[in-house]
Amino acid sequence: MSALDKVLARIDSDLDTSLERLFEFLKIKSISTDPAYKADCRAAAEWLAADLTRAGIASSVRDTTGHPMVVGHHTSGKPGPHVLFYGHYDVQPVDPLELWDTDPFEPRIVTREDGSKIIIARGSSDDKGQLMTFVEAARAYIAETGNLPVDVTVLFEGEEESGSPSLHPFLTANKDELSCDLALVCDTTMWNAETPAISIMLRGMVGDEVVVKAASRDLHSGFYGGAAQNPNHIIASIIAGLHDENGKITIPGFYDGVIDLPDDIVKMWDGLGFNSEDFLGKIGLKTPRGEKGRLPLEHLWARPTAEVNGMWGGYQGPGSKTVIPAEAHAKFTFRLVGDQDPEKIQEAFRAYVRSKVPADCTVEFIAKEGSPALRIDFNNPSLAKGKDALSAEWGTEAALIGCGGSIPIVGDFKRMLGMDSLLIGFALEDDQIHSPNEKYNLKSFHKGIRSWARILDELSKG
Amino acid sequence: MSALDKVLARIDSDLDTSLERLFEFLKIKSISTDPAYKADCRAAAEWLAADLTRAGIASSVRDTTGHPMVVGHHTSGKPGPHVLFYGHYDVQPVDPLELWDTDPFEPRIVTREDGSKIIIARGSSDDKGQLMTFVEAARAYIAETGNLPVDVTVLFEGEEESGSPSLHPFLTANKDELSCDLALVCDTTMWNAETPAISIMLRGMVGDEVVVKAASRDLHSGFYGGAAQNPNHIIASIIAGLHDENGKITIPGFYDGVIDLPDDIVKMWDGLGFNSEDFLGKIGLKTPRGEKGRLPLEHLWARPTAEVNGMWGGYQGPGSKTVIPAEAHAKFTFRLVGDQDPEKIQEAFRAYVRSKVPADCTVEFIAKEGSPALRIDFNNPSLAKGKDALSAEWGTEAALIGCGGSIPIVGDFKRMLGMDSLLIGFALEDDQIHSPNEKYNLKSFHKGIRSWARILDELSKG
Repeated sequence: MSALDKVLARIDSDLDTSLERLFEFLKIKSISTDPAYKADCRAAAEWLAADLTRAGIASSVRDTTGHPMVVGHHTSGKPGPHVLFYGHYDVQPVDPLELWDTDPFEPRIVTREDGSKIIIARGSSDDKGQLMTFVEAARAYIAETGNLPVDVTVLFEGEEESGSPSLHPFLTANKDELSCDLALVCDTTMWNAETPAISIMLRGMVGDEVVVKAASRDLHSGFYGGAAQNPNHIIASIIAGLHDENGKITIPGFYDGVIDLPDDIVKMWDGLGFNSEDFLGKIGLKTPRGEKGRLPLEHLWARPTAEVNGMWGGYQGPGSKTVIPAEAHAKFTFRLVGDQDPEKIQEAFRAYVRSKVPADCTVEFIAKEGSPALRIDFNNPSLAKGKDALSAEWGTEAALIGCGGSIPIVGDFKRMLGMDSLLIGFALEDDQIHSPNEKYNLKSFHKGIRSWARILDELSKG
Repeated sequence: MSALDKVLARIDSDLDTSLERLFEFLKIKSISTDPAYKADCRAAAEWLAADLTRAGIASSVRDTTGHPMVVGHHTSGKPGPHVLFYGHYDVQPVDPLELWDTDPFEPRIVTREDGSKIIIARGSSDDKGQLMTFVEAARAYIAETGNLPVDVTVLFEGEEESGSPSLHPFLTANKDELSCDLALVCDTTMWNAETPAISIMLRGMVGDEVVVKAASRDLHSGFYGGAAQNPNHIIASIIAGLHDENGKITIPGFYDGVIDLPDDIVKMWDGLGFNSEDFLGKIGLKTPRGEKGRLPLEHLWARPTAEVNGMWGGYQGPGSKTVIPAEAHAKFTFRLVGDQDPEKIQEAFRAYVRSKVPADCTVEFIAKEGSPALRIDFNNPSLAKGKDALSAEWGTEAALIGCGGSIPIVGDFKRMLGMDSLLIGFALEDDQIHSPNEKYNLKSFHKGIRSWARILDELSKG
């Protein structure tokens, strides 16, 4: 019986005590956005530091100007990558409380009709349940073998649900201590209940607000209509011109840096059985928009977008007002992929906008901060190792997926600490995170722990 | 010396007493929107009825559910058209009072640097001074000749500045009494201080509000961007597609009923010396928008327009919100000319909009009431007579002009009483109507009175 097998056997036999610990942790009301729960947040940090230390990762609570961080270290004395594990101990508020079937801070296990079990509590999935999969894996590994197979640093924050204001200063102040070879982040979902996943690419974003001004005041559309420029029409022409009839974005240079996916990724995504009618059906739509000739999943994960998140100009009240407004506005965001450069995209967008604004009008821009897309090197050996470990545990090839939105911590780790991140989580889409009756499948918790044991073992191999 | 010459001579010699009467009238605080001035409105109506009666037009105050009407009749016993003269005795509020140099209800005459005199008071131009030009002309005519040269009915309302709520019921209830051959309306401007004008066409209007709905809720632009329809983009494409690159409106059938102006009108307008740079310069613009190959005055008066008076969708607050909104809105108005049919225009617009909305989205319309454009028959003999009379008085050919906006009373007279209107006024663009220090040029008052004497004389000719 290999060391790993022994560790996995211990995880199985210790599951009940693992659950007891998780329940203790879930009972702490660590709601970070509400100042009323400040002491609860500290209590959660202290519980976590003590539990990590008991498990064999010497940890401490570290003050910030907000809620504290928990940092711990375990030196294995072995070669192989030094990994940083990240999670967050804070949770979302629970309101509307009346929609919870039971107290959100009294965790319980419910057996569903199909016999499967779920853990119901605020934070059961996001992120206490997820982060404890790693802690329990480390505990079992150390208990069984006396050691972890690689050097491990852990970083848990208590402000993820409230914008992480202390994170940048803390990473800056503790750069040397926290810079490792690879980050492991457990805050994402599986592809589906049977298929584990690693998120390998996150879209970037850059935004801009455009203000088009024409006359020096609002005009009467009877007296000036037909002669004076109408900023609503100019904003509309800017928006309408963004895409061609095939859904491609028309801004010159926009696609510089967009990379085509490797064939094996495209093939994998095509094989994931993603049904865009189901996906869109849930929100009352049917037909995917977007560039023709691409997989729906490419649209969502791997192609850039141009979206108007807001636009306004003139009269919005009831009835009518015959006005030609002096100005009109639109807020744009561009999701970026590959090596698209946010600054260059913004410049190209502004040149495009200026080309659409008549001489009589002026245009102003209000910039929004941009961040490039992130992706792990598809040839990074840790990626293959993580994938192998997950596939072995779940009996299904792990999916390498994308993410249409952004996960700021991954950019911070990359840009501030120089680390790639492996995003591996066991949450499911139906976990109701941020909503009443949040749950985490017991299977996610159990096999999540086993997955991390396998991943640590795999990463330690030469 | 002809009868007209004698009337004109009397007008000149009576100018001081005409001014005394006007000042009495101007002192009455007949602000129709403010209930505090209800008694003043009645006092103004009573003053007017008494003064008309003294002048020889037997008149009375007629109650409505709001401020009263004044109606008078003078039977000349002569052939020729029976005319209805319309004006309004109510005035705008005076605030901000602190911007008036003197009490708005203490009229005074000021001599300007160039030696010209102006009458300063609320209502001096809009519309007390204007309507008194007719009353004084009638008075002088009757005093000098014992009679008016045509049958005259007068109608003065006291709610023009507050939406004329009593007008429709009053016209309906007194249709036979008020239906004449021609209406004379004195509530408009001259072309400039030297050039009198008759407004011969008013644009009509029809509006529609468009609501485009896509997903059943607002979406995260990271998770759905590129796949889900964005109503902002659809509204923008509807707006941007309204005009082609030459400024023509693209809605199929939109130009049905648009008539080309007679050559002599185009030639006259071209000769009016309208400077679109000056016109637009006052509002901070320079270059006329609108269909290529048309005079600027055609754009303002005689061509239809499509304007978006308001549009909105998504997030309008500070910063950014990465949302794809569930719906977006736009309010459209179309100025109509010639024989364009408001209902057909609305139908054509809606068909156009539906053609731009993708299958995944729905569109709703919120109709606004429409009214067709109005114009006096260019061959109506009264038009030529009015023009001749004005040209003779001012020593300059009277301009036949258009009006980009609407003047509801003209449509009411046309549709409810079957009368065309001659819109003749002596106000100037710089009269500051509705603003502090409203004025009326003494020359407008004096030559306005003389103009009406000439017009009545001219209308009486076979």
